[in-house]
Amino acid sequence: MSIGVCYFPEHWPEERMEADVERMADAGLEYVRMGEFAWARMEPEPGTYDFEWLDRAVSLIGEYGMRAVLCTPTASPPKWLVDEHPGILQEEADGTTRHYGGRRHYCYNSEEYRRETRRITEKLAERYADNPTVAGWQTDNEYGCHGTLRCYCDDCAGAFRDWLREKYGDVDELNEKWGTEFWSQTLNSFAQVDPPRHTAADHHPSRLLDYDRFSSDSVVEYNRLQVEILREANDEWFVTHNFMSHDDLDAYDVAADLDFASWDSYPTGHVQVQREAVSNDELRAGNPDNLGLDHDLYRSAANAPFWVMEQQPGDINWPPYSPQPGEGAMRLWALYAVARGADVVSYFRWRRCRMGQEQYHSGLLDGDGTPDRGYRDAVDAASDLDELASVAGDDADGSSLSTPDADVALLHDYDNLWALDIEPMTPDFDYWRHVETYYAALRERSVHVDVVPPTAELAEYDAVVAPTLYLVTDELAETLTSYVEGGGELLVTMRSGVKDAYDKLHDAAQPGPLRSLVGADVEQHESVPDAMDGTVVYDGREFGCRVWNEWLSPAEEGAEVTGRYDGTMADGTPAIVRNAVGDGSVTYVGTWPDSDLAGAVVGDLLDRAGVETTDAFPAHVRVSRRGGLTWIANFGGDSMSVDAPADAEWALGGSTVGPYDVAVTDADPASLTPLSE
Amino acid sequence: MSIGVCYFPEHWPEERMEADVERMADAGLEYVRMGEFAWARMEPEPGTYDFEWLDRAVSLIGEYGMRAVLCTPTASPPKWLVDEHPGILQEEADGTTRHYGGRRHYCYNSEEYRRETRRITEKLAERYADNPTVAGWQTDNEYGCHGTLRCYCDDCAGAFRDWLREKYGDVDELNEKWGTEFWSQTLNSFAQVDPPRHTAADHHPSRLLDYDRFSSDSVVEYNRLQVEILREANDEWFVTHNFMSHDDLDAYDVAADLDFASWDSYPTGHVQVQREAVSNDELRAGNPDNLGLDHDLYRSAANAPFWVMEQQPGDINWPPYSPQPGEGAMRLWALYAVARGADVVSYFRWRRCRMGQEQYHSGLLDGDGTPDRGYRDAVDAASDLDELASVAGDDADGSSLSTPDADVALLHDYDNLWALDIEPMTPDFDYWRHVETYYAALRERSVHVDVVPPTAELAEYDAVVAPTLYLVTDELAETLTSYVEGGGELLVTMRSGVKDAYDKLHDAAQPGPLRSLVGADVEQHESVPDAMDGTVVYDGREFGCRVWNEWLSPAEEGAEVTGRYDGTMADGTPAIVRNAVGDGSVTYVGTWPDSDLAGAVVGDLLDRAGVETTDAFPAHVRVSRRGGLTWIANFGGDSMSVDAPADAEWALGGSTVGPYDVAVTDADPASLTPLSE
Amino acid sequence: MSIGVCYFPEHWPEERMEADVERMADAGLEYVRMGEFAWARMEPEPGTYDFEWLDRAVSLIGEYGMRAVLCTPTASPPKWLVDEHPGILQEEADGTTRHYGGRRHYCYNSEEYRRETRRITEKLAERYADNPTVAGWQTDNEYGCHGTLRCYCDDCAGAFRDWLREKYGDVDELNEKWGTEFWSQTLNSFAQVDPPRHTAADHHPSRLLDYDRFSSDSVVEYNRLQVEILREANDEWFVTHNFMSHDDLDAYDVAADLDFASWDSYPTGHVQVQREAVSNDELRAGNPDNLGLDHDLYRSAANAPFWVMEQQPGDINWPPYSPQPGEGAMRLWALYAVARGADVVSYFRWRRCRMGQEQYHSGLLDGDGTPDRGYRDAVDAASDLDELASVAGDDADGSSLSTPDADVALLHDYDNLWALDIEPMTPDFDYWRHVETYYAALRERSVHVDVVPPTAELAEYDAVVAPTLYLVTDELAETLTSYVEGGGELLVTMRSGVKDAYDKLHDAAQPGPLRSLVGADVEQHESVPDAMDGTVVYDGREFGCRVWNEWLSPAEEGAEVTGRYDGTMADGTPAIVRNAVGDGSVTYVGTWPDSDLAGAVVGDLLDRAGVETTDAFPAHVRVSRRGGLTWIANFGGDSMSVDAPADAEWALGGSTVGPYDVAVTDADPASLTPLSE
Ligand SMILES: [Mg+2]
Ligand SMILES: [Mg+2]
Ligand SMILES: [Mg+2]
Ligand SMILES: [Zn+2]
Ligand SMILES: [Zn+2]
Ligand SMILES: [Zn+2]
Repeated sequence: MSIGVCYFPEHWPEERMEADVERMADAGLEYVRMGEFAWARMEPEPGTYDFEWLDRAVSLIGEYGMRAVLCTPTASPPKWLVDEHPGILQEEADGTTRHYGGRRHYCYNSEEYRRETRRITEKLAERYADNPTVAGWQTDNEYGCHGTLRCYCDDCAGAFRDWLREKYGDVDELNEKWGTEFWSQTLNSFAQVDPPRHTAADHHPSRLLDYDRFSSDSVVEYNRLQVEILREANDEWFVTHNFMSHDDLDAYDVAADLDFASWDSYPTGHVQVQREAVSNDELRAGNPDNLGLDHDLYRSAANAPFWVMEQQPGDINWPPYSPQPGEGAMRLWALYAVARGADVVSYFRWRRCRMGQEQYHSGLLDGDGTPDRGYRDAVDAASDLDELASVAGDDADGSSLSTPDADVALLHDYDNLWALDIEPMTPDFDYWRHVETYYAALRERSVHVDVVPPTAELAEYDAVVAPTLYLVTDELAETLTSYVEGGGELLVTMRSGVKDAYDKLHDAAQPGPLRSLVGADVEQHESVPDAMDGTVVYDGREFGCRVWNEWLSPAEEGAEVTGRYDGTMADGTPAIVRNAVGDGSVTYVGTWPDSDLAGAVVGDLLDRAGVETTDAFPAHVRVSRRGGLTWIANFGGDSMSVDAPADAEWALGGSTVGPYDVAVTDADPASLTPLSE
Repeated sequence: MSIGVCYFPEHWPEERMEADVERMADAGLEYVRMGEFAWARMEPEPGTYDFEWLDRAVSLIGEYGMRAVLCTPTASPPKWLVDEHPGILQEEADGTTRHYGGRRHYCYNSEEYRRETRRITEKLAERYADNPTVAGWQTDNEYGCHGTLRCYCDDCAGAFRDWLREKYGDVDELNEKWGTEFWSQTLNSFAQVDPPRHTAADHHPSRLLDYDRFSSDSVVEYNRLQVEILREANDEWFVTHNFMSHDDLDAYDVAADLDFASWDSYPTGHVQVQREAVSNDELRAGNPDNLGLDHDLYRSAANAPFWVMEQQPGDINWPPYSPQPGEGAMRLWALYAVARGADVVSYFRWRRCRMGQEQYHSGLLDGDGTPDRGYRDAVDAASDLDELASVAGDDADGSSLSTPDADVALLHDYDNLWALDIEPMTPDFDYWRHVETYYAALRERSVHVDVVPPTAELAEYDAVVAPTLYLVTDELAETLTSYVEGGGELLVTMRSGVKDAYDKLHDAAQPGPLRSLVGADVEQHESVPDAMDGTVVYDGREFGCRVWNEWLSPAEEGAEVTGRYDGTMADGTPAIVRNAVGDGSVTYVGTWPDSDLAGAVVGDLLDRAGVETTDAFPAHVRVSRRGGLTWIANFGGDSMSVDAPADAEWALGGSTVGPYDVAVTDADPASLTPLSE
Repeated sequence: MSIGVCYFPEHWPEERMEADVERMADAGLEYVRMGEFAWARMEPEPGTYDFEWLDRAVSLIGEYGMRAVLCTPTASPPKWLVDEHPGILQEEADGTTRHYGGRRHYCYNSEEYRRETRRITEKLAERYADNPTVAGWQTDNEYGCHGTLRCYCDDCAGAFRDWLREKYGDVDELNEKWGTEFWSQTLNSFAQVDPPRHTAADHHPSRLLDYDRFSSDSVVEYNRLQVEILREANDEWFVTHNFMSHDDLDAYDVAADLDFASWDSYPTGHVQVQREAVSNDELRAGNPDNLGLDHDLYRSAANAPFWVMEQQPGDINWPPYSPQPGEGAMRLWALYAVARGADVVSYFRWRRCRMGQEQYHSGLLDGDGTPDRGYRDAVDAASDLDELASVAGDDADGSSLSTPDADVALLHDYDNLWALDIEPMTPDFDYWRHVETYYAALRERSVHVDVVPPTAELAEYDAVVAPTLYLVTDELAETLTSYVEGGGELLVTMRSGVKDAYDKLHDAAQPGPLRSLVGADVEQHESVPDAMDGTVVYDGREFGCRVWNEWLSPAEEGAEVTGRYDGTMADGTPAIVRNAVGDGSVTYVGTWPDSDLAGAVVGDLLDRAGVETTDAFPAHVRVSRRGGLTWIANFGGDSMSVDAPADAEWALGGSTVGPYDVAVTDADPASLTPLSE
């Protein structure tokens, strides 16, 4: 539980270096990340290296009692390298070259670039292998950022053919699995496959899905190349990568090669880019569930405490709008990350940079070296964490400062994301927002959640929530059935069991392999615009539903109907069903519920599963459990109060939590009740 | 009057084939369309053919008493063909290749592709020339779909130069006709002309218009190549092509080579794509005039009963939203098509396809082979049509089951569409929607309409409605003048007589060659945004007008002013005039009227012309006449009632027509009155 | 003070020429502009020239007592030239060629095209050098129109490298000035620099800014090439260029080579393209400040009376909407231009063209040769100007018919525009609209304004208004400080002093080099969406603010706080400060004020500066001073009245000014008061 910072010594006169490092230590920082994007400084000309500036920075960091995290500089090859190897540049689907001038200007499948990558990584690994100040490494930076995950160049064409050959063995197998009979798309050889370049009509979805998988796998392979070199040099180093929020890259696959996952958290930026309507409070501090879903995802991806490798330090340059964050928001974000399982929160960056593309990105220090708003928050966060570490105790599971084992798993994976991006079937469907609807329903009741892929081990969870489990194999259906039969409580939602692993429809009606588990079929589905927003009656109450409606048809002696559409064309048709199977039960929700309906259905699920919850907290207040303590984070602009036991001890704050503030108590979450505002 | 279906036997295991065919026959289907997109199955490798699967399907269809319609598979050449002849791919105006991966990936002007087309078409024609089950052919599929009507490749460049040489003979003639003096565009040779590729500033409109004509002509020529091969093989076969709604392809020109026109009717899709604001009722069933305009256009194009070659069977994959169609809507669409003159309505497709790009397109059967909502509607439609055929009698003109001769012609053509697309002059002008405004005004009074080009023979029509007759030659002016002098009633609207046949302004003031016929000049025109919507007083009543206002100036002893702008800048200025000429008269409407004003003006026109009408029906109810019967179609979600003579016999339903239902009676349309809801 | 017209004799049969010219003279026109776009007519084939048609036109113009303005035809090279030199075509940033077909299809940096330009310009100069009817020349036409200012071709790449070499001498100097250390962008040689072509991530802002400067400089150089040839041929000719409103081309730089600036004024077009919400009045007549800013800018750019080389004559073809201009608006525009300092207003064009891209652009005559609405207005304007010339007297400064010396300078320049276009940091910031906010505040009080770059001589101005003085060097800071110390009143607004001349942040806090002058720092800035519009209390009153808020922090013994944010997060924080420095003072406004707040702040500034003003006129009425007369222009659709001294003499109209009308009086502006409507 500590605070770090991202530092670019190469951007400043060398004589300031020691003063800067000293000041970091004074501020209570413990980790300093460096080297990202510094290839041109490390190797100003081909084969001529200069690491002295970095040596000195690492050395000073050690002297001042901190540790260094180094980065491979591969996200920004210098111009001389691009001019020597112009073939490393990516291409758009329409053939346009993605030229030099920004960053991430390389193709993951370029053999030339992999060779260059190996060279610079080995050089760095070798140089710092014995340096005790270096704690570990970040590979590259934000793979796939700026839409660079998918490239359509000839190198990718060749690599895609190899990938398909490896996966399918025989082109007839590919024809069968994809279903190429449609529109005369049968292939006679792997050599006939190209990347899905610009066409007049739509591409085949199975081909697109495999291209998405191939593209993600290309990054996994490219990343592994770096990981192996670094591990070989010093096996005590940790190796991580800094993911970007809500990416199209399979974080589970990449994380399998890492010691832990880290990610770059920009709460007011992500919320604007990822959500449709954003409130003024969210513009000041972000949304705790939009943020928390990433915390929990990256924590779960490596099944280890994560790092926030870049923490928003104030106003930033890239979202549409950048209002000043709420007073204390930069501290709130750090403490909330720790509450969700972060071990280190590293602000980006030490000092606002006075040149280049990110001049409008604040730092802990302003461009003139004076402390900015984020600096004060970072100092506070560091001191709060010190304090909390001293009182944090053992969890139920005995480990110190750990997050508790989650009672609930939220199933999520990238194959579903990609397949639904290929065929959203309405402009209003968004996989991430659908997942967030259920994540919020769990978190408003203060439930601790793991965000894991459907292949995860589920037996330990009391309940499993699976929003839009789109691609379902027989094997997965069996896993889920065993889980429920063994007493698990499962929630599955609309658009589940639609496709097989190759993005083809199942032979059976939707939910395909899940039919007998769910105990109902989907008779019809429809997408509806806002003007057709509807109503569902559940538990005698009316709720809203929208975007996608499925008309359910329970099997004989199958599921019980617990929710029905009300009014309009589907009046009285089942919308939500529950099926008792073995010692557990499965609920299927055939529409996109409003947050109240999601809350009601999830609440009932948790009751049946015996998961301990709180009353529902307002959407801007979230309660977490870590280190034997209960953390209450208020992302709103007004104070909020909880009713707590009289003997509750407050390690931070008290029962009234100020705007953008955090309180920490030893009281159990279930003993807390939100007081109405 | 029968029902058919589109069937893709190649998508399913061969052992299901007979069961499927038997079930089609049981459902009352009479035609089965096949072969579309099956090139890769027909010719898996260059020169290696496999037609056995198709032979067997045709044979079974015959055995079960149905007939087959076959398609040439040229809309989707296999990848091996593209790899052998990469030059067949089209190019965007910016030079980007339209790659393989979807469909329609070929250039109409590629000599290589024409050679390949000839080869496969001859092979097919030869194989089935003597097969009595094969009733006829569909050429290719939906020419121009996905924006593929216009291509900008070098093959097209060469063909365009030849087309211009053929049309103009001498480049000086082209310079004169286009008016190339403007902006130094004078050409010294045909070789200097390129396709209108990407430029910074606008292209010359005359060049664009000729490119649009050339592009359409290229398709006509390409299609004729197929038609001739098929006719040569068996001259009893019909040959048709399945147009797509509201296309940029000149349907009259293509239809001239066909036995009849067919089109692919997707009411809830087209209405979303073609209209701005769509009601919930329209999302459930489409709009009867948006739909009817196409029925009447394609019927008129070949002057023959048409086919709906693909009829929407339920929810579909390509519009923004796909709500479930209203209960019975799939039957409504079939009966309404027949009422407007269709002989066969063929649902697309037999069974939802489980692979490829159209998995979200429903079929009569669901993906698991169970009947979907469309199946039930198709069975009903087939049985209704059987029933109606038995009571349908002779029309006034003596032919059985024919549509009556139309009293009114609606003039429409593609040159006007293209020229106005090139110079719309306001984002709010849309040629099709302007035509629809008048089509609706005719149809709400239950008038039977032919939709024909201005070159059609007009003498037989009591009235002619010509919305935005933009390009007008002296010859056309004379034709129209003769028509009116001979007693015809003509309605001409805003933006008429503006340009000559080469898209140049006339020497004379607008309406150019129509000035003396109209008896008025257009003094000024203006485009106005919604905030400037205006008012016209006509016949003492106030109506709305919008988008485009012309200030009319009647000639001395010319037209009578029948409508004036009211309020704002043009207060009191003539907006509508009528001119008596010989035994008839011509009305000119100088603005875009709201539907009430269009109704009033058209109503007066029909009165003068002595055309028998009904009272105005609500916008979702339409009355048609066919086979001596009167068909009332209700596209609304509520029942509607008509007041009918006591002795009316009801061949289908009765005087109260349920939602999405059709009633058929022997009563004359004029004897029916809509009862207010 | 006279009226002219743009004439294209080559578009019409030669036999009409004399009648047309005679009619121009009869209408009171004094100048006729010709030759624009006529290269293909002048040189139909390579090396074959034909100037006889132009000789004859010039000769007739002389005979009828008018003078000719000729244009070089370089904006539209003929197709034969393009086919001979395809390399002259421009390229988009993504590599797409900007093909032949519109106009402006050449790259300013093409050596081939410069050679061709020299050839045709010399030919023309030589031919008319001794012709007394030719008064002067317009070079090319609207440089940069249609987004052609920036080109990304290889010729530009080479020229850019040369330009950088010239500017920086050494690549290390460039590295230092740009700050290429960021993201490994260090360059080893000038040869490594490309144009900023398509990339995945953002380009470096310093590189972009230099590319914008280079692109503008390329035009300056290209234009100078023409100017020199023309001057050499006849040094009594004037040479001008017709700028387009609000261009990305540095008008000051180009104007430095011209005798005077001219521009093409399309009030109802520009207002739609440049402003967000446009009223119906503005759709009829434009906005006087949107228009006036250009008048004042182009007058100031060459420090000479300007010409309106093309004056909108009625409805036009290129804006989204083209309602008929208000009655008299074409005369209003001419008189208003003269009031703001125009010497000649030349309507575009003589007669509506019946071919090519601008058929929907009206002329003084309609296409059929009859007078259109603009003709009548032009005749009136010519006669009014004759009348006014006879009564116009000497100004205070003694020169006849001159505009007065401005009391106030509005600082504006293109470097700021470009740098802010590169980093607007919110979709709602627009440099021009911000400048217009302050321009309007000055003009509503009838203040005469020069629009000049920050490098202008400021000493003579009583007040200087500097909206968003974004790039500030130490030198500029010293200039401004001297100005204020010497008694000047300076207004500086948000986002000033942010960057150095290379688009890097200053070492010091914002406003950087202006800190001690302003007496305050910008503590924080934020961009805010409409939902966060705020309030500022100034002078005890509440006003609105939006888009961008800076939290100001006055230095000790620094500025006085005169405005504070009210409510929301920044409640009470200084938003506006004033600092007394020497004999003057500087006001800094840290937000985007609504028009009332801008008016209040500017009003106070003018009071302190002792500038004589009127009461605030409504936004559609503007008062100007020229030739010793006061011109009141009413851009509204209703009459407005002023309270004037009893002895005021009215040279035109009277104290009630009709819609779209102008009144001219000898009364002093300060003696006039707007009467409330
Ligand atoms: Mg269905
Ligand atoms: Mg006009
Ligand atoms: Mg800041
Ligand atoms: Zn690649
Ligand atoms: Zn082509
Ligand atoms: Zn260029």
